[in-house]
Amino acid sequence: MYIGYSEAETFLRNCEDAVIITHQSPDGDCIGAGYGLKDILAELGVRSRVVCSDEIPQRYSFMTDGIENEDFEPKTIIAVDIADTKLMGRYEEIYGSKVQLCIDHHESNKNYAEMTLLRPKATAACEVIYNLAKYMEVNISIHCATCLYTGIATDSGCFKYDCTTPRAHEIAAEMKRCYNEINFARINRYMFEVKTKGRMILEAKFSDLMEDYIGGKLVIVAVTMDMMENMGISAPEMEGLAPITLQLEDTEVGVLMREREPGEFKCSFRSADEINVSEICQTLGGGGHAKAAGCTIKGDVETAKAAVIAAVEKALK
Amino acid sequence: MYIGYSEAETFLRNCEDAVIITHQSPDGDCIGAGYGLKDILAELGVRSRVVCSDEIPQRYSFMTDGIENEDFEPKTIIAVDIADTKLMGRYEEIYGSKVQLCIDHHESNKNYAEMTLLRPKATAACEVIYNLAKYMEVNISIHCATCLYTGIATDSGCFKYDCTTPRAHEIAAEMKRCYNEINFARINRYMFEVKTKGRMILEAKFSDLMEDYIGGKLVIVAVTMDMMENMGISAPEMEGLAPITLQLEDTEVGVLMREREPGEFKCSFRSADEINVSEICQTLGGGGHAKAAGCTIKGDVETAKAAVIAAVEKALK
Repeated sequence: MYIGYSEAETFLRNCEDAVIITHQSPDGDCIGAGYGLKDILAELGVRSRVVCSDEIPQRYSFMTDGIENEDFEPKTIIAVDIADTKLMGRYEEIYGSKVQLCIDHHESNKNYAEMTLLRPKATAACEVIYNLAKYMEVNISIHCATCLYTGIATDSGCFKYDCTTPRAHEIAAEMKRCYNEINFARINRYMFEVKTKGRMILEAKFSDLMEDYIGGKLVIVAVTMDMMENMGISAPEMEGLAPITLQLEDTEVGVLMREREPGEFKCSFRSADEINVSEICQTLGGGGHAKAAGCTIKGDVETAKAAVIAAVEKALK
Repeated sequence: MYIGYSEAETFLRNCEDAVIITHQSPDGDCIGAGYGLKDILAELGVRSRVVCSDEIPQRYSFMTDGIENEDFEPKTIIAVDIADTKLMGRYEEIYGSKVQLCIDHHESNKNYAEMTLLRPKATAACEVIYNLAKYMEVNISIHCATCLYTGIATDSGCFKYDCTTPRAHEIAAEMKRCYNEINFARINRYMFEVKTKGRMILEAKFSDLMEDYIGGKLVIVAVTMDMMENMGISAPEMEGLAPITLQLEDTEVGVLMREREPGEFKCSFRSADEINVSEICQTLGGGGHAKAAGCTIKGDVETAKAAVIAAVEKALK
């Protein structure tokens, strides 16, 4: 059932001993939403703990350090920033069918919870939770604001992407007026600027592998299993690299092709602006969003590239 | 004389045939401020033209294309985003001593104009001009808003840096509510994400040259004249590369050292957060701002590096 802020308030004010589930492969928005909501529940006198199927990366420790995830037999199950129970990882089996409240911003939300507070136009789950806290007139602590800012900054690419709502900017303005103690620039540095040495070297290698087609409108980075072995790159290290295919000026579509099994390429498409890559991927048996989509192509690297080039060429016409 | 919005309004409403000077090595803020102010003057029925000592880079053409810089004998001289007449380049001699109104946000403004509307806490000159337009209750056209957003985004690092004011976010929120026609994400992409192929290759090379000291807290990239020749890099290409010395997680201070004359290194210091690099550069005979400063060190590359390491080590204690 889809609900509004009023029903969500009633639920939160009357719940007890809550588990807050965040999605696997956690990011700044689900961690921020989980720990931000935990702070709000604490203001209401409700015990809670945040759970995540995967280990939370070190870079998010400023949100989790010193926060006690209380131990209790849960009476309330809440999911944040989770569109589908599949994304709960090992918690799907335990809690997937028992979620009472889901707070989310994904249009693709499967409506799996008893009650879903869905705001599909919001930049981030953290934007929804900030609005809810304001609606409820609860105190937003410094730690809570830090978490919610981080989520909004994460999902908007630091206010860079199309999905950045006016409200996201308004919330950032309100926070900057209210919380002098928060070092927003440091959060942004850790979320958007720093990388590990390994990642830096990997990105440098990727620059060498960029090939441009169709007058520079298409950039492909294709990595075979042999290449990964020769360069000493593991599959998880390749996660999140697709956006760098868009960094050249003229590029409209960037594609990262990774050989996952011999003769099978996992292709991640990114659109710089107007081209709908979801439509392109559908012609190749895949799908996704307008600006980020994917598909799997079978064949050797040259055959797979040719298929990508042909599909993009058609879309550009 | 320092003035407020009221005097600036009176001046602008009564001026005629205005030249608007932007600074040399133009950036998004001075171009945005110049062309944004030109739009506001047009609303008031005042002819104007924007001038810049250097050619305006192609990436800013979305602000300048199709805008007529009218031809007339100037009766009014206005400077935007210019702290010192020296920054006018070849226009210093012609207009430097004749500026009637300067609109700026640099604390270091030399107060060289007859009237100076200075807001040293503003993120950008464009923030001051937006506030002025609102104060004056003039119409802000789509083109004007595009220019002013670009300036605010530029100087705040797309809302990432410390200097991002609450007001900067509020303006972005107002613009996003009012101007559906503006493709903000595209502006951000061109200002912050895309690079030329040459620049991409150069950054990849720089990754290889990074050396870390003091347990990773200091990163140095040192480039001798020989290295530049071998790598085929020209001096202008090195501009703006200093920030990439800060991209590793543990780095507190990043230093780009470029051999400008044989045995003379121009050193650009950047601070990630708390270390004041202006103070460090002062100990080496230079100066600047807390987060970005510079100095010149004489000697061979190893001597120069040793001086940098010693100075940073002292500051970190």
